[in-house]
Amino acid sequence: MKAQNSKQINSLYEREKRKINTQLQNLFKNKKPQSLYSPTSYILKNGGKRIRPMLVLFSAKAVGGSFERVKHAAIAVELLHSFSLVHDDIMDNADKRRNLLTLHKKYDLSTAILAGDSLLSIAYQELLKDLNKNTKSSIEIFTKALIEVCEGQSYDKDFETNNNVSLTDYKLMIKKKTAALTEMCCQLGAILGGGGKEQINSLKLFGRHLGFAFQIRDDLLDITAEENKFGKVLGGDLIEGKKTFLLLKALELAKANDKKFLLKLIKDKGTSTKNVIKYKDIYLRLGILDLAEKEVENNTNRALKQLNYLNNREKEKLIWLADHLLNRKN
Amino acid sequence: MKAQNSKQINSLYEREKRKINTQLQNLFKNKKPQSLYSPTSYILKNGGKRIRPMLVLFSAKAVGGSFERVKHAAIAVELLHSFSLVHDDIMDNADKRRNLLTLHKKYDLSTAILAGDSLLSIAYQELLKDLNKNTKSSIEIFTKALIEVCEGQSYDKDFETNNNVSLTDYKLMIKKKTAALTEMCCQLGAILGGGGKEQINSLKLFGRHLGFAFQIRDDLLDITAEENKFGKVLGGDLIEGKKTFLLLKALELAKANDKKFLLKLIKDKGTSTKNVIKYKDIYLRLGILDLAEKEVENNTNRALKQLNYLNNREKEKLIWLADHLLNRKN
Repeated sequence: MKAQNSKQINSLYEREKRKINTQLQNLFKNKKPQSLYSPTSYILKNGGKRIRPMLVLFSAKAVGGSFERVKHAAIAVELLHSFSLVHDDIMDNADKRRNLLTLHKKYDLSTAILAGDSLLSIAYQELLKDLNKNTKSSIEIFTKALIEVCEGQSYDKDFETNNNVSLTDYKLMIKKKTAALTEMCCQLGAILGGGGKEQINSLKLFGRHLGFAFQIRDDLLDITAEENKFGKVLGGDLIEGKKTFLLLKALELAKANDKKFLLKLIKDKGTSTKNVIKYKDIYLRLGILDLAEKEVENNTNRALKQLNYLNNREKEKLIWLADHLLNRKN
Repeated sequence: MKAQNSKQINSLYEREKRKINTQLQNLFKNKKPQSLYSPTSYILKNGGKRIRPMLVLFSAKAVGGSFERVKHAAIAVELLHSFSLVHDDIMDNADKRRNLLTLHKKYDLSTAILAGDSLLSIAYQELLKDLNKNTKSSIEIFTKALIEVCEGQSYDKDFETNNNVSLTDYKLMIKKKTAALTEMCCQLGAILGGGGKEQINSLKLFGRHLGFAFQIRDDLLDITAEENKFGKVLGGDLIEGKKTFLLLKALELAKANDKKFLLKLIKDKGTSTKNVIKYKDIYLRLGILDLAEKEVENNTNRALKQLNYLNNREKEKLIWLADHLLNRKN
């Protein structure tokens, strides 16, 4: 992509992100009860990347539609995503997200449960605003993604106590927890943007592969990110004993003492901060980081290949977004 | 209503209830992950009255439709109701419901949150199965009810710490927490049953007034029910300091020492079991139980009046259901 184009798309992305943030804030303005809508509003101020709404917008464009036609659907997917974050943070007992207190820490458990429920209910309400035709199929795919997100979270929770998680298990989990949502965003954008059957299918698969790449990049960033951005602790996944792509791949390849040391982390359900560097050494020795990079690359290529089936020049925006996400540093 | 008819409808109700229970159990059979679907299945075994599905079925019939046409919608409203119970029980820190351990007590907090989310997601999936036309309006009213249930629960939570709740506040709360759902059930049944605009509106209002009557009957039963059925403690609302119709009406009418004693319960956020009888005495002295009975009656009459606009004989089933619910002893 030409630098010029890239710069233009970047400005567009920033502009649309601001619009989305404004829309999100306006959603709950002056709405009662305040005890419900003030917390929901709070959580939407966290300044995320708004990737999922952007996938809806750019997918609509890629099939010849307009942003205008899918702007509520874009909000709906962000609300669905936020709902899952709020409830996941309770389950993970997380104190902070993106340097802000999580909802159950800022308020209390009841408020957080109910605010999550409310985000989901408003998600459906917003989605309905963009539905005139294809109503049933749109609600169907939105609901299917929601079901998969719940199932994915359940698998993820199971992993905490299951010491025999395989890479295959892991892939099923991220398929549901992450890829199902990005897949739905692209599919929904394509449907509402007026795409044909094959265009919709291509974009759906684009979203799915992108989701895989995105999650594995996330696993990698846990140990390679520039520290302290967005309040993430480097090696946090190791400290918590999370069964990530890196850890599971390392377990497959490690031998002798390395294997013992990895199994200890599994058994102890985590490790101390000072050990992070030791585990990183094992990863480096076994070439895990390169393998993960390769996995990100493969999934990205699979995603981009799907765009070959589209002949609209607007698909450049999706190529840019994929690049932007998968080469991110945090 | 003739005794003969009443008996027939009662058998029909029992038969349909069994069918609903079977459908609910089959929903999650062999579904994975088990860690998610086994708890959701557990909570649906609690043997509730299945009033809300029955409202859907009977409303469809009352406009000339068939049970067959709305059987998934009937399941959907029960799932929505169950979702709200599971999350409410967490917020209320309730140990038991209908003599069974609540989900967060039987399993744990995370499982209960996620099972609730899942029940809601499957609710939409089920509803979609009955939608061919009127898809948008059906999803709209379903979502509107969901939003109101969340808002109602938020008001209810606010009441716990607000010592100045009025009867008007209370009515807004039960409108959202209870009546919005029964209203939606009847409206949905009427729409999917193929009813005309006026029939739909009559049934919607029938459902709303019935919801009010139902909730006030519930408040009354707290102090008048046959003890120990379904594991409810007599006077439980007083012990917990819940702002019910009874308590708020009593606060309006009480003077001198009675008023002081009532305010003490508000201030202390509840009372001891041995004081229940004293509060019941105040209620009796002030005629609160009669006033509440009158309120149930008025709302029931408002509901039944709406059925005058329907000329289908099948409306007898709704009359029977209203009678069955509002004259219940527990």
